[in-house]
Amino acid sequence: MDEARCRARLSAARVGHLATVRPDGRPHVVACCFALQGDRLWTAVDAKPKATRRLQRLANVRAHPWASLLVDHYEEDWDALWWVRADGAASVLDVDATAERERALAALAAKYEQYAAAPPQGEVIAIAVERWSGWSAR
Amino acid sequence: MDEARCRARLSAARVGHLATVRPDGRPHVVACCFALQGDRLWTAVDAKPKATRRLQRLANVRAHPWASLLVDHYEEDWDALWWVRADGAASVLDVDATAERERALAALAAKYEQYAAAPPQGEVIAIAVERWSGWSAR
Repeated sequence: MDEARCRARLSAARVGHLATVRPDGRPHVVACCFALQGDRLWTAVDAKPKATRRLQRLANVRAHPWASLLVDHYEEDWDALWWVRADGAASVLDVDATAERERALAALAAKYEQYAAAPPQGEVIAIAVERWSGWSAR
Repeated sequence: MDEARCRARLSAARVGHLATVRPDGRPHVVACCFALQGDRLWTAVDAKPKATRRLQRLANVRAHPWASLLVDHYEEDWDALWWVRADGAASVLDVDATAERERALAALAAKYEQYAAAPPQGEVIAIAVERWSGWSAR
């Protein structure tokens, strides 16, 4: 799958799977909403969870500044499977207003009406995509 | 979500998201089929892909013997979201017949008719689940 198609499929997906590395070196993965703009990918800590566990991803990125985000399609006809992955350097943006935070929240609100109604209050993780990978069974 | 519900939801899911750590310490995530039996989780290298890229997960587990497998449900009504994650020590089972490989392939074939028709020929990754996590918006 070429990079243009990878970008289009990832950008259109409503949920991604974000892998990071825990401070102790073990892997961690969460489902998340996200938005893509150019080579920047953003996901925000929002009001969905109740537990502090969700913030694990922030500790991870602070300890190991890389992330991998996968979107994929599953159905029982395995000839219809596909996936796209974006890998890159990750960082946690401050909750203080910054130009990039504003861009990220605007992109998230433009993609998700849920975020337009209730903007995320928590930290934003930014990923500078360095590598696109994709595969389609067809 | 209690452990019994985590197990039930994960076990019933058709696709999981497997996070591992690359030899260089960066995160990696793939979509995969899997089967659970007791505290053992298995996923196999099957005939789906063409690229050698898919074997990255094997190199990862050999370098860093841990894995995290997530299943989740997404829909636009965010009150219906849930996820379950299983974390544990991971290992690559030899393609030579071993008792555990046979158990894994039998469990995969029992869950997926696609595998019953065409058993995976590649390596099996085994995860010894040490921790269950789960969250449901409701």
